[in-house]
Amino acid sequence: MTDIDLGRTASEGRGRAGGGRAARQAARLHAHTESVPFLTRTLAPIEVLNEEGIAQIEENADIILERVGLWIRDYPRAIELFVAAGAEADGERLRFPRGLCRSIVQATAPRQYTQHGRNPNRSVEIGGMNTVFAPNYGSPFVRDLDNGRRYATLADFQNFVKLAYSSPYLHHSGGTVCEPVDIAVNKRHLDMVYSHLRYSDKPFMGSVTAKSRAQDSVDLARIGFGGDLADRTVMTSLINASSPLVWDATMLGSADVYATNNQACIFTPFILAGAMAPVTTAGVAAQSLAEALVGMAFAQLVRPGAPVILGSFASSMSMQTGAPTFGTPEPSLVLYVMAHLARRLGVPFRSGGALCASKVADAQAAYESANTMQATMLGGANFVLHAAGWLEGGLSIGYEKFVLDNDQLGMWHTFVKGVDMSANGQAVEAICENEPGMHFLGTAHTLANFESAFYRSDTADNNSFEQWLEEGQLDAAQRANKIWKKTLAEYEPPPIDAAIDEELNEFITRRKSEMPDELG
Amino acid sequence: MTDIDLGRTASEGRGRAGGGRAARQAARLHAHTESVPFLTRTLAPIEVLNEEGIAQIEENADIILERVGLWIRDYPRAIELFVAAGAEADGERLRFPRGLCRSIVQATAPRQYTQHGRNPNRSVEIGGMNTVFAPNYGSPFVRDLDNGRRYATLADFQNFVKLAYSSPYLHHSGGTVCEPVDIAVNKRHLDMVYSHLRYSDKPFMGSVTAKSRAQDSVDLARIGFGGDLADRTVMTSLINASSPLVWDATMLGSADVYATNNQACIFTPFILAGAMAPVTTAGVAAQSLAEALVGMAFAQLVRPGAPVILGSFASSMSMQTGAPTFGTPEPSLVLYVMAHLARRLGVPFRSGGALCASKVADAQAAYESANTMQATMLGGANFVLHAAGWLEGGLSIGYEKFVLDNDQLGMWHTFVKGVDMSANGQAVEAICENEPGMHFLGTAHTLANFESAFYRSDTADNNSFEQWLEEGQLDAAQRANKIWKKTLAEYEPPPIDAAIDEELNEFITRRKSEMPDELG
Repeated sequence: MTDIDLGRTASEGRGRAGGGRAARQAARLHAHTESVPFLTRTLAPIEVLNEEGIAQIEENADIILERVGLWIRDYPRAIELFVAAGAEADGERLRFPRGLCRSIVQATAPRQYTQHGRNPNRSVEIGGMNTVFAPNYGSPFVRDLDNGRRYATLADFQNFVKLAYSSPYLHHSGGTVCEPVDIAVNKRHLDMVYSHLRYSDKPFMGSVTAKSRAQDSVDLARIGFGGDLADRTVMTSLINASSPLVWDATMLGSADVYATNNQACIFTPFILAGAMAPVTTAGVAAQSLAEALVGMAFAQLVRPGAPVILGSFASSMSMQTGAPTFGTPEPSLVLYVMAHLARRLGVPFRSGGALCASKVADAQAAYESANTMQATMLGGANFVLHAAGWLEGGLSIGYEKFVLDNDQLGMWHTFVKGVDMSANGQAVEAICENEPGMHFLGTAHTLANFESAFYRSDTADNNSFEQWLEEGQLDAAQRANKIWKKTLAEYEPPPIDAAIDEELNEFITRRKSEMPDELG
Repeated sequence: MTDIDLGRTASEGRGRAGGGRAARQAARLHAHTESVPFLTRTLAPIEVLNEEGIAQIEENADIILERVGLWIRDYPRAIELFVAAGAEADGERLRFPRGLCRSIVQATAPRQYTQHGRNPNRSVEIGGMNTVFAPNYGSPFVRDLDNGRRYATLADFQNFVKLAYSSPYLHHSGGTVCEPVDIAVNKRHLDMVYSHLRYSDKPFMGSVTAKSRAQDSVDLARIGFGGDLADRTVMTSLINASSPLVWDATMLGSADVYATNNQACIFTPFILAGAMAPVTTAGVAAQSLAEALVGMAFAQLVRPGAPVILGSFASSMSMQTGAPTFGTPEPSLVLYVMAHLARRLGVPFRSGGALCASKVADAQAAYESANTMQATMLGGANFVLHAAGWLEGGLSIGYEKFVLDNDQLGMWHTFVKGVDMSANGQAVEAICENEPGMHFLGTAHTLANFESAFYRSDTADNNSFEQWLEEGQLDAAQRANKIWKKTLAEYEPPPIDAAIDEELNEFITRRKSEMPDELG
């Protein structure tokens, strides 16, 4: 059973003329790399709480906003906007009447928005039944099998932009895919945004590490997209809360710039349960909702209608060491609850990814990543950061892990289509035409469907044990090592208008010349 | 954040007196190994088809039973029973009027049954919202990191019985956990059943490789349980169809013995989609239902009320080589559909497990196993064979894989409890008593909950990169290697009545003396 050449079985067994093995392989390759700009789910999302339970979490978020409120650090403009909208300020502490933030968000935040790619064919729809996969974000280290773990550089950053661009399953170029620590901390955002514009044509994320860097991102995007951005969202950027219950000036300042310019923000409470929130799922969810509501409401007060995403990042904790843990049951439950809350609120939802605590692309990494991605997809996340590459709690991005995760993303493209209930899918005639005990390998139905019947993994080894031995007993990471090298070797950049490229470079040169280097 | 001693934070930060670190660790260990005889889910199972779709699959199964029918090979008694019940026989081909098999099954098959363990505290409930985890089944090879892959022996078999007995998360001792190929093929079933009775006190499975071996299994169980079995089911055994649409004499003969003695059978179409069924999900499901219905109806005709399980084993196929592939999207969809069909029929459901095609316990193995287990659990399987240890499409059982899978089973025990919506779980007071920006590490709520807050993996490394380096950069499989050795070293057998043990051994000695060795 393990060495059947289905093509040969077909042509020899039934006398069909075929286009030859090479043609069939080419067709298979084509089917394999077929790409969609974003993924559209067809299955209803899982809900782990009933109506009473989910309404209670919403009620609890309102209680938190009313009784404790949030601390708005060093950003008076946000306090002024909220007070004008009906919040009460006690210094930098803001308390919110019940329902205030929810009503602000629901009044103007879009349920779904288009983030434009530089290539219009790669624009993504964020919200509803759509899911967008973006790569890893924020790691200071990179790892590969050849050189182990080391600080990331701009060359690594560009490699991952190229790998994401080459993937048929990553819809988005991401943002700080890794930290290019060889570039001054106050200048690297310019190189990062440029790399996304130059080495990819997929949508991307702007800088959030300072208000001025968000403005630089907007200015670069305006050049890259050749005109004003007011009528189109071309960046979705990551605004993290300083949980518990704090928004700071860096994040609000960046969000201010993006919302002002009609660019999207993901407002994400960043929760290590037990440290930044209580240890319980319902507690994490209520606090996360409270924090995210304030962030999203701020964006609506800055510019009604500015696209926002409700984000959730919640890990469990090792009670031995206090370290974050991933792929465990509790964060999955939080994710399902938060996705449900976002649907009820009527905004897109971001969470999940290929999260893990493992240092290497081993079984731990894969169990944890798969568990997280199952909740991500079955819960119905709309924007999935860290969908490929993440290692050791985000401290590192792995080249091999990136390739392995990417293959899993391909599988999700197949899964979400659900069950084909066409006559061909039901295959009743095929079964009825076959005699009991006769195999289906060469039947007309199998021949008509086998090119597209099953997802084809490019990292799994499904060969016989003997063949696997002969080929060097490679494990999944070793196979992935070959794939990323081949992908980078074959990479070709997307076209860019030479005048735009020149203008981008002039902008960057000028901005760099205006600032002395800051150390990271 | 990665090196916090939560106990110390608690006692120093808030001045609480504690029992000391050792006492806390002991308490943690206790919490970790808390065991339940079987797992009870609280979350509604996922359904990937609507009412119209699932009813169509049922209709298609009826069309198959009516038009093609099944081939009942070399077992006239089954043909006689079915003809007496209303089926039409054309030689060994049986065709079934619409609804016949369904009505036979629904008339007398129990929705749920108790499988008794030799230790009554370990008896399991099979059906409904319950899930029972059983180890790997049927592998001729074993693998561990020290000695690689080799043929399995009785010593390996007993090791895995001991490992499953030692696990708080495996509820069942399984059956042919691996094939003890050092024992003659016609005698090894005696050693296997004895091992389950002697080295474990959890429920187990009987032999199905010949009718006489099923009878030996019943006779041994009768001795082991000290009396007649007519009023209690003590074995659940695996009856596989010879798909497509064939039941053979070996399997029906074994099922006949078990049903006659009120012992349970799992009727499982064994489908490599594209070979034993069409390549499509809906096709696999309709054919599987047809085959399983006939098997379960046969058991009901033999003895109305005999416990039966609707089984499903479906893999996708590598279109390059014809090899089975696992953890891919299509088998997950089949599993969700089959679970739904079993619920509608009103019988327990078996499927899933930690299935993979990988030869080693690497990232491929873990992705594939986790993906399969997610569908297994979220779909609502009642009996999960292969829940730990499976490698390379079942050809091999891995010691390290067994340990890693077992840890995942522990996580499922936590996940299925769902969200704690008690006041303590909601944690509103804990959040409202905390100031924005203040961590929760030492709060009263965290201290009251941290022992049981999160599932504690015994195979994941969540330490800092530096600590992981210091400890030898072990990957998950290397850590698992230490765990199974420690578990076996600490193993102590459950008690057994000396007279019963003697009678079991006398029976086995006598039966072995009655047969010359047959080569496998």
